[in-house]
Amino acid sequence: MTEKEKMLAGEYYLASDPQLTEERQKTRRLTRLYNQSTEEQPQERDRLIRELFGSVGKDCYIEPTFRCDYGYNIRVGDNFYANFDCVMLDVCEITIGDNCMLAPRVCIYAATHPIDAPTRISLLEYGKPVRIGNNVWIGGNSVIAPGVTIGDNVVVGAGSVVTKDVPDNVVVVGNPARILKKINEI
Amino acid sequence: MTEKEKMLAGEYYLASDPQLTEERQKTRRLTRLYNQSTEEQPQERDRLIRELFGSVGKDCYIEPTFRCDYGYNIRVGDNFYANFDCVMLDVCEITIGDNCMLAPRVCIYAATHPIDAPTRISLLEYGKPVRIGNNVWIGGNSVIAPGVTIGDNVVVGAGSVVTKDVPDNVVVVGNPARILKKINEI
Amino acid sequence: MTEKEKMLAGEYYLASDPQLTEERQKTRRLTRLYNQSTEEQPQERDRLIRELFGSVGKDCYIEPTFRCDYGYNIRVGDNFYANFDCVMLDVCEITIGDNCMLAPRVCIYAATHPIDAPTRISLLEYGKPVRIGNNVWIGGNSVIAPGVTIGDNVVVGAGSVVTKDVPDNVVVVGNPARILKKINEI
Repeated sequence: MTEKEKMLAGEYYLASDPQLTEERQKTRRLTRLYNQSTEEQPQERDRLIRELFGSVGKDCYIEPTFRCDYGYNIRVGDNFYANFDCVMLDVCEITIGDNCMLAPRVCIYAATHPIDAPTRISLLEYGKPVRIGNNVWIGGNSVIAPGVTIGDNVVVGAGSVVTKDVPDNVVVVGNPARILKKINEI
Repeated sequence: MTEKEKMLAGEYYLASDPQLTEERQKTRRLTRLYNQSTEEQPQERDRLIRELFGSVGKDCYIEPTFRCDYGYNIRVGDNFYANFDCVMLDVCEITIGDNCMLAPRVCIYAATHPIDAPTRISLLEYGKPVRIGNNVWIGGNSVIAPGVTIGDNVVVGAGSVVTKDVPDNVVVVGNPARILKKINEI
Repeated sequence: MTEKEKMLAGEYYLASDPQLTEERQKTRRLTRLYNQSTEEQPQERDRLIRELFGSVGKDCYIEPTFRCDYGYNIRVGDNFYANFDCVMLDVCEITIGDNCMLAPRVCIYAATHPIDAPTRISLLEYGKPVRIGNNVWIGGNSVIAPGVTIGDNVVVGAGSVVTKDVPDNVVVVGNPARILKKINEI
């Protein structure tokens, strides 16, 4: 397996691999161009996001700054909105459904490192995919940890650190995030 | 009522309204100019903040980057200092007294969304005003949630998520923020 | 004592002191140049970091944006990596050992303010040094508070607020951060 294949499979890989380094370099350039674009260039922004992401539904708007590692592992559905300064470390897939909103400074981390120091300082690292359902609202400054799946219609309160899966139709808050209440169907 | 009148009144409104969209566009431009200004341009920074905010006391200094939605809903007293990367989503009034300090990455959110998914994805949203007293120090990376009132002489510990009102003369910490101790008068 | 000597000694000082103001101005310029540099300028980035920091080991890489107050109080060992948007308020020494990694948005605050309002609004402030051992990984959006010492081989979970010293070989998580588990030697 190549280092990229290992990365995508969630196995230990070396990010210093030449192919991955070149891909990240390309993404750094695209996100830099995105973050240098102005509010008067909505079409250029849309073009850059569609070049960057693996797939994008209709009506996607992301306020700069936005940062990610590869971009091609990010898939967002229709009607996606991300406010200022969101970060997605997409070493594995980050999948986001339809009608989702990220408040400012939401960080979605699909990247992680070994806990034991000798392995970690050998620079082996790995990822776990993150899946976010439809109609999800993630409050400001929240962190979504590697491997987490969030259900449909979920609200994540501002400042939450989501380390475990979240079922459909609940509000979660806190660090670590816990269910505050169920959301009743209307 | 216009959408702007609904917004300012704390009622459901549509941010896609043409007047509000134009106002946010103007604010995006001003905050971009602010964030592009350099440390050698203190007068230009002061001018931009005074153009942006609803009212500003004497001696206001904000380190870039700074971001907000409208600006005109923000009122700060004398001797205001905000460190790097603060965000204020001012869809309703954000009022800050005299002698207040924000550490880096403080986010003040007067904007919120409905909890139930059908209403939220209809893009109706609303705000709640935030009021911060005099002599308040808000520690780094803290979040102030919509509708919160913070009293005088309060210290908010770094990384706090303030979801409820805070009385005068206390230190609050944590997520959600709770009173750690009272501050004795000297 | 000069205001700078007081600052470095951890005593009350005035940041408005002309010498300190000039030093911060120089640092604002260097960090601005760093944050304006592109992914195609790794040598320029390395040069700027070595001009900025008190000491730097071999192989230091910091993703923009990066912000600090003075720079000369920051000492990092070999093989240092800091991801996007880290902040270090280095009014006292921030010492980081070998093989350390900071995830995005890590904030290390060696700067603090008095709790009582009259002293704080007199603009007297002070710092406490932060020491981080070897082989430490600090997860995204974590805050390291003034005066904290973190041991070797420590993992700080994403979104943690570290307010107390952390011994060697543990994982800490939460707000405030607490020991989640010991890391066994392999």
